[in-house]
Order: sequence, then C-alpha cells, then structure tokens
Amino acid sequence: MAFGWIDEQARLRRRAGLVRTLRPRAADTPLLDLASNDYLGLARHPEVVEGAARAARTWGGGATGSRLVTGSTELHAELERELADFCGFEAALVFSSGYAANLAAVTALAPHGSLIVSDAGNHASLIDGCRLARGTTRIAAHADPDAVGKALSGHDGPAIAVSDTVFSVDGDAAPLAGLVAACREYGAGLVADDAHGLGVLGEGGRGAPHAAGLAGADDVVVTVTLSKSLGSQGGAVLGPARVVEHLVNAARTFIFDTGLAPAAAGAALAALRLLRREPERAARAGAVARELHTRLTALGLEGVRPDAAVVSVRAPSPEQAVRWAADCRAAGLSVGCFRPPSVPDGISRLRLTARADLSGAEIDRAVQVIGETRP
Amino acid sequence: MAFGWIDEQARLRRRAGLVRTLRPRAADTPLLDLASNDYLGLARHPEVVEGAARAARTWGGGATGSRLVTGSTELHAELERELADFCGFEAALVFSSGYAANLAAVTALAPHGSLIVSDAGNHASLIDGCRLARGTTRIAAHADPDAVGKALSGHDGPAIAVSDTVFSVDGDAAPLAGLVAACREYGAGLVADDAHGLGVLGEGGRGAPHAAGLAGADDVVVTVTLSKSLGSQGGAVLGPARVVEHLVNAARTFIFDTGLAPAAAGAALAALRLLRREPERAARAGAVARELHTRLTALGLEGVRPDAAVVSVRAPSPEQAVRWAADCRAAGLSVGCFRPPSVPDGISRLRLTARADLSGAEIDRAVQVIGETRP
Repeated sequence: MAFGWIDEQARLRRRAGLVRTLRPRAADTPLLDLASNDYLGLARHPEVVEGAARAARTWGGGATGSRLVTGSTELHAELERELADFCGFEAALVFSSGYAANLAAVTALAPHGSLIVSDAGNHASLIDGCRLARGTTRIAAHADPDAVGKALSGHDGPAIAVSDTVFSVDGDAAPLAGLVAACREYGAGLVADDAHGLGVLGEGGRGAPHAAGLAGADDVVVTVTLSKSLGSQGGAVLGPARVVEHLVNAARTFIFDTGLAPAAAGAALAALRLLRREPERAARAGAVARELHTRLTALGLEGVRPDAAVVSVRAPSPEQAVRWAADCRAAGLSVGCFRPPSVPDGISRLRLTARADLSGAEIDRAVQVIGETRP
Repeated sequence: MAFGWIDEQARLRRRAGLVRTLRPRAADTPLLDLASNDYLGLARHPEVVEGAARAARTWGGGATGSRLVTGSTELHAELERELADFCGFEAALVFSSGYAANLAAVTALAPHGSLIVSDAGNHASLIDGCRLARGTTRIAAHADPDAVGKALSGHDGPAIAVSDTVFSVDGDAAPLAGLVAACREYGAGLVADDAHGLGVLGEGGRGAPHAAGLAGADDVVVTVTLSKSLGSQGGAVLGPARVVEHLVNAARTFIFDTGLAPAAAGAALAALRLLRREPERAARAGAVARELHTRLTALGLEGVRPDAAVVSVRAPSPEQAVRWAADCRAAGLSVGCFRPPSVPDGISRLRLTARADLSGAEIDRAVQVIGETRP
C-alpha cells in the first residue's frame, strides 16, 4: 500500500521514545514561558499587535502574489529599508520565513562550481540550503575558523562559508571575526544566520555581525528572522545592494513564493521601531540568560555558557528530557525539549529562552522548578 | 573579490532583457488587478481583514516558536480541522508557506531508496522538494499518466508521483484520475499541489482532488496554499492522519520553522468560512477565466484554454512581453509577465488571473487594453 512504510517508522519512533505530538496552546495560559523564541517579549506587545492589525486593514490579509508580481507593497519596502539601516547593511530583502531566507541566500550565492563550507552545527535551513545549492559542500568542525580556512584552501572559483551566529541548540556564538578572516584569506564570502542574534546581541540589538564590526562589509551577507526577537513571522537577507539584486533575480524561494503577509511585515516593523526606542531590551535578554545559566550551574546542572538568550541544560536521555519538560509543565513552567534528530550531537536537552521581560520573581520560580524536577 | 562573480551574471541578465526589479505598490492603486493570485477577491474582504486583526490581538504578532514547541495555537488546530473537513481529508497540517508545505510533503514522503516521478511542468517548490528528498527523481512528460506509469514500473520500494493540479504558468489542469490510476497500478502514492485549484475547482471550491473524487483517499496527499484564493499567507498538507503524523515527526520545514503567524491563520480561516457561505465565488472565478480566454482568442491571441482561474497569453519574446505588460500598466491594467527562467518551455507570456469579483465592465476593459497594446 502507498505510504505503508510510514507505519514501520512510526513504530520505531514509539519504541525509541521519540514521538512528537502537537499540543495547541490556549490564548491565555498560566504557564511561565521559557520555551518560545520571543526573546524581547514583544510578540504580544500592544504596538506590535497594532502594527499587525493596522497593516492587515491597510493592505489586506495577504500579499496576493510573488514579490515580483503583486506581492511587494510599500510596507515591505519600508521594512527592508529600516532593517538594513538598523543592522548597518546597504540593502535587505524580506522573505516569508527565515527558512526561506536561508535557502535563498545559500542557493543563490553558491552556483555550480562553487564551494560551500558549512559549520557542523548549522541550522536545518542552512543545511537544506547547502543540499539544494549547485555548489559543493564541505562540513567544517563546529565553530572552528582554522577548519574553515583549511576547507577553503585550494578551491578555485566562488566560495562561501556558512554559519549560524548563535547556534540554536546550545546558544553558543560563532567566532565571527575568525570566520571572516579565514574567508578573506581565500576571497570567500561569509553567510551568517543571525536568527538568534538580532535583537539580543550588538549595540541595541543590532545583531552579532554588527557587534563583530562586520556591518556593511561587502563580503558578508546576513540572514535574520522576524519571528524571534521581533515577535512576528518572516525572514530577511541583509547585505550589499548587488547581492540583494542578485537574490531578486536568482533566489527561487523569493521568486516563486508569495510575499510576506502585510500583517507580519507590520508587526515586525513595529517591533523594530520599539527596539530602537528601547534598546535596553536587548542587553536585558542576555543578562537574564547568563543569570539562568549561573544559577542552574550552581545547582549542579550542565550546560554551555550562553552567548545570547538561549540557555541549554543537558538531560541524561531523550525519555528523561521529555519527562523533565513534562514535570516542569505540570509545575507551571513551559520549557523546550530538544531530542534527536533535532540535535546534532544526539544529546537531549532542555532548552530555555531568556526573555527580556522576565521578572526577578519569574527567574527565581523557573530556577526552582527546573531544579526540583531534575531527573 | 567575494561575490564578484555576481556582476557578470547581472551583465548577462541585462543583455538578455531579463532583469527583474521590485515595484512596491501603494495601498490604493487605480490599477485594475489581473496579476495577483487573489482569485476570489478575498484578500481585502472586511471579514478576512478582521480575521487577521482579531487573531493578532488574541494571539500576538507571531507564533513565537516551532509548531512543536510554542508555535501551535488552538487557532492553528481550528484552521487545520476546518481545512481538512472542507477538502474532505482526514487531517491537515499548516505551514508558513505553500513552498514549505511542498518541501515537507515531498521530502518526508520520499525517503532513501524511494522513487519520485515528477511532472515536467511542476512548480519550483515541488522541484526543490525533489532535489532535497533522499529518493531518486524521474521527470515525466507533462500531464501524461502513461509516462508516469512507465516511470513507476519496475521500481521496488516506496514511490510517489508528484504533480501540480493546475499548472501555474498556463493554467492547464493535471489529469488527476489518470495519474492516480497509474499510481495505483504500481502501489505508489500521489502528491498533488492544489495551490491554484483550492477555492476555484470542485464543489464550492473544494479543489481539484475533491472534484476528481480523490478526497479522503488513503494514497493521496494534497498540498494547498492559503495565499491565493484564501487571501492570506501559508500552506497546508492534507491527507490521511498517519501521513500528517509522519510529517509532524519528519518534515524539516515543519519542525525547524516558526509556526504560521496567527494573523495569517485567522485571515485564512475567515476566508474559508466565507467561501463555505458563498460557494458561488468558486465557479465565478472559472467562468471569468473562460470568458477572458474566449474573448482574447477571438482577437487572435494565443493561449491555453484555462481549466481554473489562470489565463495565459503568449508573447513573441521576453522583451515584448515586458513591453506589453508595461503598456497594459500604463493603460491602467496590472497583468503578470512570465519570462525565462520562470517558464519551463522558455516561452514568455502575459499571465492573467480571473478574479471572481471582476465585473463585466472590468472584463471588457481588460480585454480591450490587452488587445490594443498587443505587440
């Protein structure tokens, strides 16, 4: 029977304790949220919500077509200008998701005959970009500029190195200065996914590339998401104007996708303006993360020191990670639970996000619950 | 210099007359729109707009995480139930775009060792799904069930045939009954992308698979978009519950993407309910398309007889297609212009969309302008 093979995979998943199920949440939940990527606590901010509602009223429920046909509104152009300006790049291009932005950047910048050097811990969307690209991919050891340089050496033709700026599983930062130095030695470009850096790292949340002095560099292309610190949906590619122009002409996930919904563009723009006005939100997210890590480590729990707002805590096994997360939930705390195959090293973790708007009492409660429910 | 090779590609594009530029539109334009995919004219319908605004107010500007972490709201579940019910399938799963839904369906249903038979005219997102999948892809001649059967024959192991139900360039329909018969002969599944069928074809817009009697079949998986007839953003996969459960566990563009923004889910749900209440909108879109085709053909213009709401008119060259579209625009009519590499056969076209809410006078005006500006 067609699709019959699915049942065997489902059996294997059940046996391994790796079944994933959806648990739709209510609009008002008493759970303390340390699971979302709403790093700045802006997703439900009145200005962000009104930005979405106003954009829907002004422009409609959808963009109505590809950005190249009817899907580009003045709102998209405004968001692109302000995003580029905020992060310090010449131009920006907005996509329907960060996933689509990453597919676009990697595939369009790695033509046939080119080389991609990809960090071993990169996000799935970058990996899929490498798989889709016509160029050849070499995997470099995690966060290792020397390995990137070695992989780039000897290649003749266009080349890029591709890396998350903050890795989504452990929350550790990429060595951007070292990576760009390795790229420059071999004339390669750097594509850096700042999904977890924008809004958290750099001056007022301008992101990891800005913090590393790479804003506006002609050999650096940055991808970001609008769905984490900006509390909306969508993604963007930032870089030199000619790279953005190239994407408009060559990136399949730009050309053949419907433009980002106006409400999402409006929400992201409102969040960006809010962040400009209240730049202290960015530093606060990082401070909360470091405090969580320090206090959980003091309890004897194991995790990587956070470079941004993602805090990971190791669990002994997938089953125990699931039970731990469920116990936290029963105690009123929502935490993420990362298991194989969503983790590159096979190690299960609780994944906490340090929202800028967590109060001291909420942090106390989170630390207490995680400690008390530990396996 | 990194990215230096881009300039040469830009030169080649300019020389070939194939440069694409973004033209952001204003919120209020006097142009008559025959370019968007807003087939039912719902994107700016007050109920759809209010659906978006209300959802943003209730749930926030974004879904805040992966559907597997915090990104599934009761609104997503409601939309999934109503979509599945409307189209006659057991279950549905909503994605951030139709592109992401297609990548998910094809990659998750074509594991290592499997065979994918893909129509030569398929949409870019299905093609990228084939490229990303671990299975082997064979391209079958366009809309040719015999070719699909031949490609499937002799393969041992899981297999799927993949096809648009309505092809986006010419608006011709796939021979779904023949395709599913070919699949059944060889125990293969059918993955059908109904992006241009939902809301237009089938009883009250239930889509091409429903019209072909395939709704609820255990060997048929349908993908749809929320960004065309439903006037919003996003995509969905419809099929047997165990296929949807499999996607939740295996589809990377589901697991590693942020959930669809609540505003987009709310807009799509409002549009779906409106379509249920006013099913005549679906038939009207098709009738407008056939009228446009008949009248343009009577003027001696060439195009494929439309099976849904997409009407294509051939242009002698890419340059003339661009000029023709620009002349239409100058005369107050917005039309799509498809050129290489966005057309599988290299033939440039004007692409018109037949909105259900076009008046007789507007159709008259469109036909007149297109006729008067012809190359």
